[in-house]
Amino acid sequence: MAEAGLDATIDGVGNVIGRSRNPGSALLIGSHSDTQPTGGWLDGAMGVIYALEIARSLGEDGETRALAVDVASWIDEEGAYFSFLGSKSFCAEPMPDAWAQVTGRDGRSLAEAIAAAEFAGRAPARLDPARHIGYLEAHIEQGGRLEAAGKRIGVVTNIVGIRNFIIAFKGAQNHAGTTPMPLRRDAGAALIDLAYAIRARFAELAGADTVWTIGHIELHPGAPSIIPGRAEMVLQFRDPAESRLDLLEATLHSLVAAANAAGHIEIAFAAAKDGVAATAMDGELQRHLGIAAEAHAPGGWMLMPSGAGHDAQILARHVPSAMLFVPSIGGISHDFAEDTAEDDVVLGCQVLATACVSILRELARTAPAGRRV
Amino acid sequence: MAEAGLDATIDGVGNVIGRSRNPGSALLIGSHSDTQPTGGWLDGAMGVIYALEIARSLGEDGETRALAVDVASWIDEEGAYFSFLGSKSFCAEPMPDAWAQVTGRDGRSLAEAIAAAEFAGRAPARLDPARHIGYLEAHIEQGGRLEAAGKRIGVVTNIVGIRNFIIAFKGAQNHAGTTPMPLRRDAGAALIDLAYAIRARFAELAGADTVWTIGHIELHPGAPSIIPGRAEMVLQFRDPAESRLDLLEATLHSLVAAANAAGHIEIAFAAAKDGVAATAMDGELQRHLGIAAEAHAPGGWMLMPSGAGHDAQILARHVPSAMLFVPSIGGISHDFAEDTAEDDVVLGCQVLATACVSILRELARTAPAGRRV
Repeated sequence: MAEAGLDATIDGVGNVIGRSRNPGSALLIGSHSDTQPTGGWLDGAMGVIYALEIARSLGEDGETRALAVDVASWIDEEGAYFSFLGSKSFCAEPMPDAWAQVTGRDGRSLAEAIAAAEFAGRAPARLDPARHIGYLEAHIEQGGRLEAAGKRIGVVTNIVGIRNFIIAFKGAQNHAGTTPMPLRRDAGAALIDLAYAIRARFAELAGADTVWTIGHIELHPGAPSIIPGRAEMVLQFRDPAESRLDLLEATLHSLVAAANAAGHIEIAFAAAKDGVAATAMDGELQRHLGIAAEAHAPGGWMLMPSGAGHDAQILARHVPSAMLFVPSIGGISHDFAEDTAEDDVVLGCQVLATACVSILRELARTAPAGRRV
Repeated sequence: MAEAGLDATIDGVGNVIGRSRNPGSALLIGSHSDTQPTGGWLDGAMGVIYALEIARSLGEDGETRALAVDVASWIDEEGAYFSFLGSKSFCAEPMPDAWAQVTGRDGRSLAEAIAAAEFAGRAPARLDPARHIGYLEAHIEQGGRLEAAGKRIGVVTNIVGIRNFIIAFKGAQNHAGTTPMPLRRDAGAALIDLAYAIRARFAELAGADTVWTIGHIELHPGAPSIIPGRAEMVLQFRDPAESRLDLLEATLHSLVAAANAAGHIEIAFAAAKDGVAATAMDGELQRHLGIAAEAHAPGGWMLMPSGAGHDAQILARHVPSAMLFVPSIGGISHDFAEDTAEDDVVLGCQVLATACVSILRELARTAPAGRRV
C-alpha cells in the first residue's frame, strides 16, 4: 500500500486501510482477505488486490493521478468470530453484546486474538461521509451462472436476503413393529410430508433468483426399528427481494398451519437469528460498471444478483455501493480447487478500474460527498 | 423349577431348562428372561413364569399330573450379543462365524461372559424331536392393538417378516446461495422426493398388518447453507406374509429405478443383514389357544400377527409353535412404564394352561411326536 502511494494503517479490529493522499471525494474499493478453512486463493483476496492495483495504476497515469482511491481489506467477513466484523466496525454499526468475548474455533476470544496481534487499543478506521462517495467490491462469483451463460463479467443488482427456519416436529416414539400405521404419531413422516409440500409450493412461487435448501434433517432417536418421536429440519431460502422472502415466509406459515390442523404431530418453527435482509446495489454505480464492462467485453457481461453475502451489503447501508463478479471455474469456491481463468481475472480488474475513473470523474463533479438517496 | 417337580439345568449358553419327569410326549413352554436396558418387568419374564406356573399347577392336579410340560427360559432374545442366541442354540441352528467372540456393550466377549458365569464347557440343551410335540410362548403384546380393539387375549397367527434397506443418495455438495435451482444436484431433495413417493405408494399396497418406517435420515454435511452432496435413509417394512414383503421390495426397486432415470442423483440401496423371514404359527395350536380363550373370555380375544420378533419364530422352524398375547397398557414396552392389568396377566395364564392341557391330551393321542407337517 505504501508503494502504491497510500497511507496504510491496521485498525483496532484488524482492517487494513490504505488512504490516498489526494484530497476531495474518494472512492473506497476493497474486499476481505480472510476465507474459509479450506478456501481458495481468490475468495476475497482478489478484490483487495484489484483495489490495490487500481490505486497504484491510477497514481502512475498523469490523467488519473489526482483521483482519490482508498483501499480496504476487511477483517473476518467469513465469521471466524462474527460475519462482517471489519465492514460493520468501519461503518460504526452496533456490535452484538460482548462482541469481543466471542470465541473462535481455538477457544480464544476475539479480544485475545486482537491483543495477540498487537492491535488492541488502536482506533477503529471509519467511513468518512465527507470523503467517501461510494464503495466498489469485486469478487469471484462463487457459483456457475456466468459460466453457464458464457459471460465473463457480472454486474451485481442485489445481494440476496437470507432467512433460516428451524422446523421442529413432536410426535410419539414407538416400536416400529407393533404400532399399526393408523395408531402412529410419526414425527419423521410428518417432516417428509411437509418438506415435500414446501418443495412443491416454493417451486410454484419462485422467481429466477429464488433458491431454497433443506440442509439439515434429524430424526430422534434415529434407529431403524423405532418410530421417530421427534424430528427437526432447517429450511433456508434466499431471494434478492424482501417482498418475495415475505411471501415465502407466509407460505411456510400456511403450510405448517395446514399440517398442524390435519395431523397428530405438533409442528413449530422459529426463524434462526442469522437471517440477512436483501440489499439493492446502487443503480448509478451499476450503470458505470455496465458501461465499463461493455467497453472491455462487448456482449460479454450480464446483470445478476449475488446469492452469497458480501461486505458490500454492509457498506450499502451507509454509502452507494456496487459489486462486480468474475466467473468461478465450475462454480467452485471455498475449496482449494477454486479458480478463475487468468484472462477473466485481468478483465475484471480493467473493468473495475475504468468504472472507478468514470465514477470519480462524474460523481465528484455532480454529487456532494456522502450518501445520495 | 425344582419345587415344581422339574429337573432344572442351565446349559452352556445360559438357557434355563426345566424338564418334566413325566415320560412321553411333552409340550415345551417358555419365553426369555432378558429385556432391553430400560425395559419393564413383564417383557419375556412373564412368559417364563406362565410356563413355570403351568408346570407346577398341572403337577398338583390328579387329572393333569401325568402330562409333561418342559419349561424354557431362553437367553439373550434381545441381542445383547446376538438376537435369539438361546433359542437358536436349543434348535441347533447354525451360529454366525466366531459367534462366541461377539462383544457386548461392556466390550466383553460372549465367551468371556459365559466363562464368568461358570457355564463354559456345559452341554447345550437341545430340542428333543422324540419328546417335544410343540412349543407355546406367551408374551405381552408390546403394542396397542388389543387395547384399541377392547380385547384381552391375542392368538398370534404370524410373526412378521422384517426387511431393512439402506438407501444412499449421491449428488454434488454446493453453496446454497450461489447455486441456482436448475443447476443443483441436491441429494437431500432427492431423498425427500423418494421418501414421499415410498410413503404414498406403500400406503396403496399395504395390508392391515403392513407397517413401514423411515427411522433414520442423514444429510451430509448437514449445514443450513450447504446443498447436501450425500444423503442416506433407512427404510424398514414388516408384514406377516413373505409374498407382500416381496411385492414391497419390488416396488422399492421400481421407485428407485424411476428416480435414477429422472434425476441427476445416483441412488443406490442395499438390504441390511438383519432382515427376518415372516413365520406362520401352527394352525392346530392356534385352534387350541382360541378355544381356550373363548372358554375363559367369551368374545374377548382376537387373532392377530406379531409385529415384533420372538423366540417362537426360531422354534417354529423345528416344531409346531404358537403364541398368546396379553394387552400392554398404552402399548408401552421396553420401558420401565411397561405394564398389564393384573386380571389380564391371570387370564393369559389360565388360557395358556387350558390350551396346554387340551393340546397334550389331543396331540399325544393323535400325532406322533416331532414335527407334524
